[in-house]
Amino acid sequence: MAVQIRKLDSTAPDFKTTLDALLAFEAETDDAIETAVAHILRDVKARGDAAVLEYTNKFDRIPNGGATSMAQFDIGQAELEQALAALPEAQRAALQVAADRVRVFHERQKDASTGFTFTEPDGTVLGQRVTPLDRVGIYVPGGKAAYPSSVLMNAIPAHVAGVKEIIMVVPTPDGVKNQMVLAAAAIAGVTRVITIGGAQAVGALAYGTETIDPVDKIVGPGNAYVAAAKRRVFGTVGIDMIAGPSEILVLCDGTTDPDWVAMDLFSQAEHDELAQAILLCPDADYIAKVEQSIHKLLPSMPRAATITTSLSDRGALIKVRDMYEACEIASSIAAEHLEISAVEPMQWADKIRHAGAMFLGRFSSESLGDYCCGPNHVLPTSRTARFSSPLGVYDFQKRSSIIQVSEAGAQTLGKVAATLAYGEGLQAHARSAELRLNPVPPQAS
Amino acid sequence: MAVQIRKLDSTAPDFKTTLDALLAFEAETDDAIETAVAHILRDVKARGDAAVLEYTNKFDRIPNGGATSMAQFDIGQAELEQALAALPEAQRAALQVAADRVRVFHERQKDASTGFTFTEPDGTVLGQRVTPLDRVGIYVPGGKAAYPSSVLMNAIPAHVAGVKEIIMVVPTPDGVKNQMVLAAAAIAGVTRVITIGGAQAVGALAYGTETIDPVDKIVGPGNAYVAAAKRRVFGTVGIDMIAGPSEILVLCDGTTDPDWVAMDLFSQAEHDELAQAILLCPDADYIAKVEQSIHKLLPSMPRAATITTSLSDRGALIKVRDMYEACEIASSIAAEHLEISAVEPMQWADKIRHAGAMFLGRFSSESLGDYCCGPNHVLPTSRTARFSSPLGVYDFQKRSSIIQVSEAGAQTLGKVAATLAYGEGLQAHARSAELRLNPVPPQAS
Repeated sequence: MAVQIRKLDSTAPDFKTTLDALLAFEAETDDAIETAVAHILRDVKARGDAAVLEYTNKFDRIPNGGATSMAQFDIGQAELEQALAALPEAQRAALQVAADRVRVFHERQKDASTGFTFTEPDGTVLGQRVTPLDRVGIYVPGGKAAYPSSVLMNAIPAHVAGVKEIIMVVPTPDGVKNQMVLAAAAIAGVTRVITIGGAQAVGALAYGTETIDPVDKIVGPGNAYVAAAKRRVFGTVGIDMIAGPSEILVLCDGTTDPDWVAMDLFSQAEHDELAQAILLCPDADYIAKVEQSIHKLLPSMPRAATITTSLSDRGALIKVRDMYEACEIASSIAAEHLEISAVEPMQWADKIRHAGAMFLGRFSSESLGDYCCGPNHVLPTSRTARFSSPLGVYDFQKRSSIIQVSEAGAQTLGKVAATLAYGEGLQAHARSAELRLNPVPPQAS
Repeated sequence: MAVQIRKLDSTAPDFKTTLDALLAFEAETDDAIETAVAHILRDVKARGDAAVLEYTNKFDRIPNGGATSMAQFDIGQAELEQALAALPEAQRAALQVAADRVRVFHERQKDASTGFTFTEPDGTVLGQRVTPLDRVGIYVPGGKAAYPSSVLMNAIPAHVAGVKEIIMVVPTPDGVKNQMVLAAAAIAGVTRVITIGGAQAVGALAYGTETIDPVDKIVGPGNAYVAAAKRRVFGTVGIDMIAGPSEILVLCDGTTDPDWVAMDLFSQAEHDELAQAILLCPDADYIAKVEQSIHKLLPSMPRAATITTSLSDRGALIKVRDMYEACEIASSIAAEHLEISAVEPMQWADKIRHAGAMFLGRFSSESLGDYCCGPNHVLPTSRTARFSSPLGVYDFQKRSSIIQVSEAGAQTLGKVAATLAYGEGLQAHARSAELRLNPVPPQAS
């Protein structure tokens, strides 16, 4: 099957309608999955370890008749270190460089989200305290989609935030462990690794079992069962966003080697047949060259079939009037990954209102950011960059307000509060403020 | 009915079990509500204004045969200003003081969440940009539960964040407008007020209609229909947390006037029969005094019936071993409102790991914070302070990563990325990085 990538022109009368249809993506909810997940969660909540053990033996086809105790699912720190030591030198070094850079970037993030207190003239102290979560669960998919880079991107921000317990769950279908995933856990600050997965792992982390303390938040990607389970335990624990298909939007002024842009589009399209890769460019001749590069380079790609489906079904090469219009369209798309492959890219970046991550200049391929630039690769998809952010240290922190009203402050604030409380018909609120208006000395305890 | 508040002792063998049962709260999902809301949302998405008009005329019993166009639901800036001007002087002044203080506090919050960029030795620039949301919807309940303070607490952080369009929706059952709510909108930075409510208003804000541009996030409290609608549109837009019943936990060393503590417990209990008010204290005699104060003060409260049910069903006076244990228990409860009514309260505050807001010292009644201290009164309930924060400026901002890799940076990062990408079986990712290893000069556009 040859790739058939659609070409659009922003001057066409139906352009906006066509673009909206192309961008539309609604996650289907599957009733069978919902029912199964609801049952598994209830069961894990009621029976704890026994339920987790049964589901894991069954769904992950644990060999030798299955595990007989939860302890068999724990991977000790020694085994993680061993996995790291056994990696080929180049892989170990690459993983370490990536981890170091991710850590450095996220430490800046921590510095940028601070608490504060200030004292008013009457002695009243107000403030905001920023503290880490106690305990976090990191879900890591097993099998083919096991990505060590995701271990780094999910665990390191939690570690930098100061989370004391970072519990990683990763299923091992047929008992097979991914050594690079274990190696990544060894350097990311993960404190415990448990080889369980699916809705049962989400339930165990959210509700706790005899051997697993309940966590405060669960992050990390997973299949439809995991996503459904995360949605259901939200409220009992925090969760990260449920990710849609991955997207790249390349905004190019026509000065980048067309092969580079074609390959950047492939690097998104190879993820998944639902992934979306779109080029915006004011230069029709350049767009034609990128299309030629696509046809030239595609046959050599191992994942050509996935790329072909993705580009044909959800990709587009869009001719725009100029770079200004390209920035307008890019803001409305609010892409997960936005490459501005142009000279002096910052002038265009300043016009972008929404994007998960912006890759500026022709050397900033998305793939560099996916692995090792430092910023997180967990990014808002499906236009949610309009209101949400990359995964970060702030996702593993929470804030508490501090209010210490002085005796003098209580006199002025008390009258204001009482007036408003009576206006709202909340008399106990008003009385509680008014009692402080005529203070009596503290009593001995 | 006399109030029957349970008394617990932390040394009792079944204390933890009893406390867990007391704290447990699960929001029920009502199938009839879910079905109705799903239908309304689909209808608003499909038919826009026509559907909103029909539902509003029907559910809010709009008089004179109902409205005939959406324009009739818009309240102009002049009418808001008029509502403010017509308020009794004391109320207008109180509202203004509260708004000013909330604004000042949230400006500090904005300063505490900043972006950054840094340049590496090879010229690579990395950073994080913090920008406001474009358009936000504020839901304000109508009728009895219309709280002007909630208008301030929801709208001002959005305004401080720099959100350009702040669209408030407020139902007006039987066509009755709450003048204090309109006055609050006038000073909070709301840019448009529409008198619609319920699931139809949530749908209109999320999907947009002919006369309402879709927003990026919807915040604010509402009834069960509103909560169900917000849950359903989450993903299309951002939402704030769905709040559970309000809670106060008072941690007292026995030095505060027992009447004050009793009234503070009332001020929570008067909200709602499901509200929860709990006292932790190491001094049994003091607890007895608070109980006497409760019996003495309760008959004079206009909302005595609600307070009685709330305290009897969900309240508790808990004797603890000492203040250290009180702090431990308080951390595990992770209360929405935590009063530390004690001398030198900061020593205990430093031991608290989780709380929405901490009110320190005997002059810091929760009611002062509810109205006018400055910090937000929208706080995480039902133990979610373990992982979430007060509503704040940060809820109306989002972050974008900035990645500008230099040519030199692409040489070192490209090798790292390619190694990891091959390890994950993502060859287009690897090739995209490798293409930058042997750069060709940029082409003329």
